[in-house]
Amino acid sequence: MSKAIEGKTAGAGSRRAFLKSGVAAGLTLAGSAAALSGARAEAGDPAILEKKDWNQYLGDGVDANPYGAPSEFEKSVVRRHVAWLTADPVSSVNFTPLHELEGIITPNGLCFERHHAGIAEIDPAEHRLMIHGLVEKPLVFTMQDLMRFPRENRIYFLECAANSGMEWRGAQLNGCQFTHGMIHNVMYTGVPLKYLLAEAGVKSNAKWLLPEGADASAMTRSVPLFKALDDCLVAFKMNGEALRPEQGYPLRLVVPGWEGNMWVKWLRRIEVGDMPWHHREETSKYTDLMENGKARRFTWEMDAKSVITNPSPQAPLTHTSGHTVLSGVAWSGRGRVDRVDVSLDGGRNWRTARLDGPSLDKSMHRFYYEFDWDGSPLLLQSRAIDTIGYVQPTKTELRAVRGVNSIYHNNAIQTWHVKAGGEVENVEVS
Amino acid sequence: MSKAIEGKTAGAGSRRAFLKSGVAAGLTLAGSAAALSGARAEAGDPAILEKKDWNQYLGDGVDANPYGAPSEFEKSVVRRHVAWLTADPVSSVNFTPLHELEGIITPNGLCFERHHAGIAEIDPAEHRLMIHGLVEKPLVFTMQDLMRFPRENRIYFLECAANSGMEWRGAQLNGCQFTHGMIHNVMYTGVPLKYLLAEAGVKSNAKWLLPEGADASAMTRSVPLFKALDDCLVAFKMNGEALRPEQGYPLRLVVPGWEGNMWVKWLRRIEVGDMPWHHREETSKYTDLMENGKARRFTWEMDAKSVITNPSPQAPLTHTSGHTVLSGVAWSGRGRVDRVDVSLDGGRNWRTARLDGPSLDKSMHRFYYEFDWDGSPLLLQSRAIDTIGYVQPTKTELRAVRGVNSIYHNNAIQTWHVKAGGEVENVEVS
Repeated sequence: MSKAIEGKTAGAGSRRAFLKSGVAAGLTLAGSAAALSGARAEAGDPAILEKKDWNQYLGDGVDANPYGAPSEFEKSVVRRHVAWLTADPVSSVNFTPLHELEGIITPNGLCFERHHAGIAEIDPAEHRLMIHGLVEKPLVFTMQDLMRFPRENRIYFLECAANSGMEWRGAQLNGCQFTHGMIHNVMYTGVPLKYLLAEAGVKSNAKWLLPEGADASAMTRSVPLFKALDDCLVAFKMNGEALRPEQGYPLRLVVPGWEGNMWVKWLRRIEVGDMPWHHREETSKYTDLMENGKARRFTWEMDAKSVITNPSPQAPLTHTSGHTVLSGVAWSGRGRVDRVDVSLDGGRNWRTARLDGPSLDKSMHRFYYEFDWDGSPLLLQSRAIDTIGYVQPTKTELRAVRGVNSIYHNNAIQTWHVKAGGEVENVEVS
Repeated sequence: MSKAIEGKTAGAGSRRAFLKSGVAAGLTLAGSAAALSGARAEAGDPAILEKKDWNQYLGDGVDANPYGAPSEFEKSVVRRHVAWLTADPVSSVNFTPLHELEGIITPNGLCFERHHAGIAEIDPAEHRLMIHGLVEKPLVFTMQDLMRFPRENRIYFLECAANSGMEWRGAQLNGCQFTHGMIHNVMYTGVPLKYLLAEAGVKSNAKWLLPEGADASAMTRSVPLFKALDDCLVAFKMNGEALRPEQGYPLRLVVPGWEGNMWVKWLRRIEVGDMPWHHREETSKYTDLMENGKARRFTWEMDAKSVITNPSPQAPLTHTSGHTVLSGVAWSGRGRVDRVDVSLDGGRNWRTARLDGPSLDKSMHRFYYEFDWDGSPLLLQSRAIDTIGYVQPTKTELRAVRGVNSIYHNNAIQTWHVKAGGEVENVEVS
């Protein structure tokens, strides 16, 4: 069976020559008649069947990395922050490298961070969650107590209300990591909050909750009781393992489909009341200042949105024409993504993208569009349509309704300009 | 709204006192009449409503960890190897800490490793995949070439054929990490192998493939063409990011539902032939030696299996009676898991467990069983039933058919003995 190979072991090629010929072959890609793809390298040179240079070294054994890490060649795949954006990194944000990711799961080490007073360090053995206020019986739960309640596992996106906020006034940041990277999508394991509230016995006049974090900012947000009784989780795991410290270890409130600021981290207290509290983070912040100077408040649900992650400014095309894969992500705080459309010409013509992988409620979805690129410039756009029929708007449409004062809730269609040669730039089309 | 709290800030309690009272309250759990759970702590002491000791420090900012890591309090959540099991850690195995995980996603850093010659270190820019043999046109692909083919995203379990192998002759290893930890479950992104084969043009007499790894062991296995044309992927991402080095970076063959040894890592070559190659790893290894001295071969599909991960020997119960959550995982190489049954009395009585989270083809499933523990000893078992109707067998049933010579393909029901007090031991029941 392997005769053809064995017959060539006397060939002149070294490993280096083998690789060089591979590269050379890799450059003669264009014009494949094959239906499925034009990406192809022909193995015409016997040297590429050379076998004598198999790896001879023994690598690390199973005792080397009790907790693994990415390859050294993936060093550039990291969260990034923008120093000029905030006064201090303890009250700031960094961004998920969306252009480096595929599928719908964000690895825990790459989930964007947003802190208001740095990362609280908490010993789970000392941590407590208190539920009090308009309840029959105020309760304090240890982590062990919570492990005795029924659990659920759900994949949800978490998007900061300020994601894409810099883009309200025009194309600002050159890369989807920065324009759209305040989002991640992981599997949470947690106790449905309704079980804990039932244990405390919510009084009949209760209508609101005030979850509070154990960090130095003592983050609080008013959450309506109906949401808590619907699908909120008190989560202790993300992607199978304990929450990461920067994501609220050991407990975080999960508020599916709603803006990330409400997903209180380091959750230590939930007060039950009959009115919202009107705290700082729901008055001076996380409200949408309109053209007339009034502010929209309690705009919790994240509208349907999408972005093309490849190609994008940080991930240009490395070929100049032929078969091309466009990849992106879409999500909606109101359900599943039903369809994603893609335009190559700035929104004049639209084609239906291929959704691939699990389609789950309030989760990120992955979409693709494969096409033959003629090498001329493109204006790439994507628009998500969710299961309630909402269509992601253009920037022009969104500004007509909301003006440009806000930094929150910008879910407009993003445009990438692909130049001849493959370079990509953040642009606006009108 | 927060008056009740504010009225108590003059109270005598310090943060330390608050925590102590929480612990004390946490110990008075038993006997809750609430329907949903008995895990409960009463907040009778005003000191626990004490608020003055909020965290005062500012933690790490968003510039501290470009690629994040688990909390220091999670240091014990690691892959573990058993030194006496193999002669050298470069040809050995370590184990996923199943008892520390929840949901169905295994974090990349905790996916068990099995190497035959250590971890190959590969520069993706230099890596090539060759397809040759019974094809119209031998091809060599660079990583960039592969990025121009359509991609798919699927969550699959990968189980080593030797998982639970030590248990054939009786209860040996005390912990599900060691008895069942040669499995992980991640989302792969890859190019369907059938697209690459179509590009090369498979000849009409082709029936088998020989994928080969780029490590020093040059791992090879014969894979039938029908499987490659069905659902095999040439994967380059796991859980969104690049494959980890120990999982085959930059390319691994994904063979859904089939034994892990066939999922060739560091994939560099696929030969197409008309017969299997009968290489070492499918003759002297990864075959099932029967009672009569003959060996079952090509036993690729992993039969339905399950294990209770909590409680288990490494994760004893920390309460002595009352509401208890039993958690576990189940999977089948032949489809989805349709049902999981749980027994508390060594298989005499069975109850239906609650499946929770996505139910996907050839993926791990999470199941739960919540019950009121009376504090007396338990013999915990779980059995999976998959969508083709296959029922996970007892050890006795499996030995009656296969004897005890094999180390591979042990999918028998596992028994944990929970003692009064909560300690758990690996035992056998007949």
